[in-house]
Amino acid sequence: MIKRYRLGNPIKTYATVMDIPVEKETLPDWTIDKESKTLKRTLSKEAIVYGLGETLRGINKRGWTYRSFCSDDSQHMEDKKSLYAAQNFFIIDDEKPVGYYWDTPESVEFDIGCTDIDTFIIKHQELDVDIYVCIADTKKEIVKEFRKLIGLSFIPPKWAFGYGQSRWSYFTADEVRDLVAKYEEHDIPIDSVYLDIDYMDRYKDFTINEKDFPNFNDFVKEMKEKGVHLVPIIDAGVKVEEGYDVYEEGVKNGFFCKKEDGSNLVAAVWPGRAMFPDFLNEEARKWFGDKYKILLDAGIEGFWNDMNEPAIFYTEDHLKEVFEEIEKYKGKNLDIDSFFKFKGIVGDIDNNPEDFKRFFHEYEGKRIRHDKVHNLFGYNMTKSAGEAFKRLSPDKRILMFSRSSFIGMHRYGGIWTGDNKSWWSHLLLSIKQMPALNMCGFLYSGCDLGGFGADTTEDLMLRWLEAGIFNPLYRNHSAMGTRRQELYTFKRVEDFKNIVDLRYAFIPYIYSEFMKAALNGEMYFMPLSFEYSDDRSKETEDQLLVGESIMIAPVYEQNATGRFVYLPEDMKMVRFRSLDDYDEEELTKGDHYVKVGLNELVVFIRPGHVLPIGPKAKNVDDIDYSKIKYLTYKAEASDYELYNDDGLTRIQ
Amino acid sequence: MIKRYRLGNPIKTYATVMDIPVEKETLPDWTIDKESKTLKRTLSKEAIVYGLGETLRGINKRGWTYRSFCSDDSQHMEDKKSLYAAQNFFIIDDEKPVGYYWDTPESVEFDIGCTDIDTFIIKHQELDVDIYVCIADTKKEIVKEFRKLIGLSFIPPKWAFGYGQSRWSYFTADEVRDLVAKYEEHDIPIDSVYLDIDYMDRYKDFTINEKDFPNFNDFVKEMKEKGVHLVPIIDAGVKVEEGYDVYEEGVKNGFFCKKEDGSNLVAAVWPGRAMFPDFLNEEARKWFGDKYKILLDAGIEGFWNDMNEPAIFYTEDHLKEVFEEIEKYKGKNLDIDSFFKFKGIVGDIDNNPEDFKRFFHEYEGKRIRHDKVHNLFGYNMTKSAGEAFKRLSPDKRILMFSRSSFIGMHRYGGIWTGDNKSWWSHLLLSIKQMPALNMCGFLYSGCDLGGFGADTTEDLMLRWLEAGIFNPLYRNHSAMGTRRQELYTFKRVEDFKNIVDLRYAFIPYIYSEFMKAALNGEMYFMPLSFEYSDDRSKETEDQLLVGESIMIAPVYEQNATGRFVYLPEDMKMVRFRSLDDYDEEELTKGDHYVKVGLNELVVFIRPGHVLPIGPKAKNVDDIDYSKIKYLTYKAEASDYELYNDDGLTRIQ
Repeated sequence: MIKRYRLGNPIKTYATVMDIPVEKETLPDWTIDKESKTLKRTLSKEAIVYGLGETLRGINKRGWTYRSFCSDDSQHMEDKKSLYAAQNFFIIDDEKPVGYYWDTPESVEFDIGCTDIDTFIIKHQELDVDIYVCIADTKKEIVKEFRKLIGLSFIPPKWAFGYGQSRWSYFTADEVRDLVAKYEEHDIPIDSVYLDIDYMDRYKDFTINEKDFPNFNDFVKEMKEKGVHLVPIIDAGVKVEEGYDVYEEGVKNGFFCKKEDGSNLVAAVWPGRAMFPDFLNEEARKWFGDKYKILLDAGIEGFWNDMNEPAIFYTEDHLKEVFEEIEKYKGKNLDIDSFFKFKGIVGDIDNNPEDFKRFFHEYEGKRIRHDKVHNLFGYNMTKSAGEAFKRLSPDKRILMFSRSSFIGMHRYGGIWTGDNKSWWSHLLLSIKQMPALNMCGFLYSGCDLGGFGADTTEDLMLRWLEAGIFNPLYRNHSAMGTRRQELYTFKRVEDFKNIVDLRYAFIPYIYSEFMKAALNGEMYFMPLSFEYSDDRSKETEDQLLVGESIMIAPVYEQNATGRFVYLPEDMKMVRFRSLDDYDEEELTKGDHYVKVGLNELVVFIRPGHVLPIGPKAKNVDDIDYSKIKYLTYKAEASDYELYNDDGLTRIQ
Repeated sequence: MIKRYRLGNPIKTYATVMDIPVEKETLPDWTIDKESKTLKRTLSKEAIVYGLGETLRGINKRGWTYRSFCSDDSQHMEDKKSLYAAQNFFIIDDEKPVGYYWDTPESVEFDIGCTDIDTFIIKHQELDVDIYVCIADTKKEIVKEFRKLIGLSFIPPKWAFGYGQSRWSYFTADEVRDLVAKYEEHDIPIDSVYLDIDYMDRYKDFTINEKDFPNFNDFVKEMKEKGVHLVPIIDAGVKVEEGYDVYEEGVKNGFFCKKEDGSNLVAAVWPGRAMFPDFLNEEARKWFGDKYKILLDAGIEGFWNDMNEPAIFYTEDHLKEVFEEIEKYKGKNLDIDSFFKFKGIVGDIDNNPEDFKRFFHEYEGKRIRHDKVHNLFGYNMTKSAGEAFKRLSPDKRILMFSRSSFIGMHRYGGIWTGDNKSWWSHLLLSIKQMPALNMCGFLYSGCDLGGFGADTTEDLMLRWLEAGIFNPLYRNHSAMGTRRQELYTFKRVEDFKNIVDLRYAFIPYIYSEFMKAALNGEMYFMPLSFEYSDDRSKETEDQLLVGESIMIAPVYEQNATGRFVYLPEDMKMVRFRSLDDYDEEELTKGDHYVKVGLNELVVFIRPGHVLPIGPKAKNVDDIDYSKIKYLTYKAEASDYELYNDDGLTRIQ
């Protein structure tokens, strides 16, 4: 059951798809203080809070403050409050579980026992919000209720579950050809290669760098014949350049975000000066969405939308102020006070909060300052693409995932979790994030395997491929200036090949369970406590249930040759060294220290359940379903209902 | 046995105190490549590398590259290569353990299976180094050999083992008075309050801000009567200000670091323009050391030396270049290339590597560019103090610890591990760092409990006080702008009081074991593998042995109510809720999941061993040794040899 409570006069977000009447009573269980614009609620010592989608820290969100404000900040350290998303659904599991969806585009702070260890404090900028209260007997049922409220999740083509190789950037078509040849040579399966910003002509959306990617359409075809999909990036900012059609059309039609005086906001991203399409304006959204056709026509079947928080290097107006401000510090004795202010002038230039107040949207017939609806920007960029794909490719699914997100966007695309780093702590974080994303409807998601920023190491890359082996989005991506992460660059390539072969062997299960979750509005990744009610399951933060059959317990510490695993019931452990070389062992309920070599992968099959295992494959299309084996524990192979379809036909 | 091998012509560091002849043969087990200035050695799959003192990551250093270059970088993220120290001692534990001390002041990279997973690569700037090879049967013996080589560790006064409260900054004497009164009111023991930079008159070393700390000598006395020692900070940079005696004397005597043209280097730190005493110059060292007398005469008995990597906000020359460089970017379209360069001009202004090439030292009768001897700077600042204390306070110990360090400095002071953050991962890091510091002779050491940067939370503060309860330096310190961390500011003050009471109850044991380690050149904190040879002990990274009697296994995860503990042999677990409320339980060798509430502390007593427990005390002086109880496991109280002394008389 879902009830809707309203405070103030919230701006419509289109996060939900059901029309639920607003309750007349006030929201139960919370104390509302209009003056401080806060809501408070006591948490018992045992209460656990789940959810909030793409955020930092634990599965249990207690003990920190999270700010719902889509942020391009590549330093995902544990004291940060915001990542790229605003996903305001959470479950308080106290005496009985209750789900809450905080439907507002504004920046909200969720202080979950941080300031006061026993109190959940929600702090608004303005007290304008629709609060949906989801009530059911179990956390699983609460999520299901919520997912009905927000509509079915995006379903990508099946090839998008294959291994993807990415880098900022592959600079030429030949570099991509060489990469694909290397994967072929080492017999490592691959389904996609991602094109980061350098495939474009000077970072202009919907253009091709013809010099380095000549005859792009032929190149796309050539790659597809090798079973490889090219997936280009699309940025939110449009380069200011006379003669560039997207820019000129946008200006002509008034589709760009405007300043208070009505002139177009000039901000900067990769190409320098750029303008931002007003994705909140329906017409602009349609116009921009139609631009994807250029690439669809070239044979492209998938995209990733980036820089859509939006990321702003600077606004032209602020840059002028910066240079003026700098003048004041010239020739001075810069001391403790002035030196750090001086550094801050330049250090805080990008993604400056003040810049978000410099421009406006045309939304729902009104002019609204950006900061009031900031969290809807990336969502509506991806909605722009998703709506266009339905028009332009009504029958065939198109892959789409975004960096910034808001609940509602899950209907149009998945997400990747942004610019993580090659840190062991981020490997662990990537495990913890998955169930929270699933709760909020973001099923097709994953992190940059191996880590985007900083240098990876061979063991980290391998452990991460193992830890993420059930992630729907299975992409290895890394940043310019960091160590190369293509799997053939490492010493023990055979280990990497074995793990990616296993990924493909699991795809029948991954796809089957993903699709069931998508079609039934359920979770694909779950915390143990969503299935088991014992105290230990409640505090297990480094193991997950994946689909109906298995539990995973990845190794996430460097130099470890094993780890502790908690089994909430008897399970069968399967230890894979490769697709054909594995052992099965029954383990009893309780604690175990499990050895897991660097080249090994362990999976735990739940009693009464089945894990289908496909044969060796070169890519997703190549998976021969007639050769599937079934690993079982206290079950028959036939107990498992394997979902499959053509992987291409559009479902929603 | 220790052998010394020499490559090139190393600059003398005075890290060692034994004169060991240089071997004629070349260094065994390593391949030396003179062209690339690297040494290489294969590591077996099982090999573990210990040591390197104050560095990031694990007890086992494999899988990363560490750069020995004292750095003021407050972002201790896991991909950083350097912290504040250069402590080049490590043990390779392969078929048999071997210790190496890499005695050189230059920046050296230790690539321990990072670039190549099977290879240890040591990369020099210049191949000038004395390599000491320490050979013995066990890792413990190797450390003991090494510690003979480098001389006995600094011993602080006993009161320095009490609880210390710090903050950047307490701004007035009244603020300190109020703090001390609050600790008294809540009956929380305390021995010291740290004065950060604001006790000085405009950040001038050896001055007092008379307005906010009037009648300083009386104030010191007043606090001491309450059992509280004030511990002021001393910075490496001396403010440029006419009429300021330290500045004027330094200029007159030519004691400051000079540029190539012979003029004094003007760099900046807290006060803005400043000059750096040439601590490598013996005369300058003596001159600066004698300045501490001003504060000793005021009744001060302890100091912390800061900013001595050295930290440089900017050099005057570079700042001019910065402003000139900025001009070039005015009015330009700053794009992907130019924007980040522009940001970098200002972002990289502080601690800029080029600035370390702008000045020179007079060292051993030669003029040497700073970057060649950079790692000796902080060491010699602290040596300056340590040598002075022997002259000025020949009988009484003076507390001294430093941020920057180099082996050799351990004879003159301890260290704190610098500007950590209120991160759970830094709580864990602080556990892992302790044995490595001990190996390198740094016994009196500890981290900022609760975390210096970022906002702490009540649970993190409490868990950190518990995790660090055996740290010799037990100081709660936090940065300006972060949440207050004084223990009485939290909700459940009683829990904090109970834990600090326990700290004091452990001081008889802590001091006894610390002193034995200091006097015998042994370790106080040890990895399990230094005592137990089983495979599991080798990879246990989150438990430590403390002294001869106990093992600790702190909780370092938020919201956890327990943790896995590995017992390499049967042990007795003592679970303390307070000094008087505790249970004892015998646990068998193997794995256990141990519940540890937020307000609980568990300690594991090894068989045949004894843990003395003192009574409630207000401060270290107040500990009544006649009331010590002895917790035993398969032992008699009399089996424990309790070391004690007056805690004040100078020993070395």
